[in-house]
Amino acid sequence: MSETNSVLIGKKPVMNYVLACITFFHGGAKEVNIKARGKAISRAIDVVEVVRRRFLPDVKVAKVNIGTDQISAKEKGSNGPTNVSTIEITLAR
Amino acid sequence: MSETNSVLIGKKPVMNYVLACITFFHGGAKEVNIKARGKAISRAIDVVEVVRRRFLPDVKVAKVNIGTDQISAKEKGSNGPTNVSTIEITLAR
Repeated sequence: MSETNSVLIGKKPVMNYVLACITFFHGGAKEVNIKARGKAISRAIDVVEVVRRRFLPDVKVAKVNIGTDQISAKEKGSNGPTNVSTIEITLAR
Repeated sequence: MSETNSVLIGKKPVMNYVLACITFFHGGAKEVNIKARGKAISRAIDVVEVVRRRFLPDVKVAKVNIGTDQISAKEKGSNGPTNVSTIEITLAR
């Protein structure tokens, strides 16, 4: 666990993130962290499923953490802090 | 585990599903299953977080399963079967 290979899921196509994960694993990583928040969470699950089912069947979902981030007023607008859900999925092989 | 209290997340507002979960727990349920697929997955995470943080702090995420459903051509259009990601979150207290 000394190395942390993280892939933060945003608005790019699923395959971009899939490729990032595969690159980590091909580089010898034993674990890859996939993080997403808000609407990108669905895409994070897609990434996990494509990696596992199409490319690296020996990779397993080791851990799934669900949480909440507070977005400050500055970041979002002027309606005060907003909550956004987050997910962190650890893939391991 | 004889009873299965399931809440299937769709396109309604988050609070509708939160209320469904709370109703199960107030009715004495020890576990509630939250299921979602595709873009509703983000909403499922929102539901979990609102239930845990705002209403029932003693409820924990017991299990998270990630999977894939095949949608047949009939259901979706004529491009052959499509894959859609699914999530199943078990809340317990």
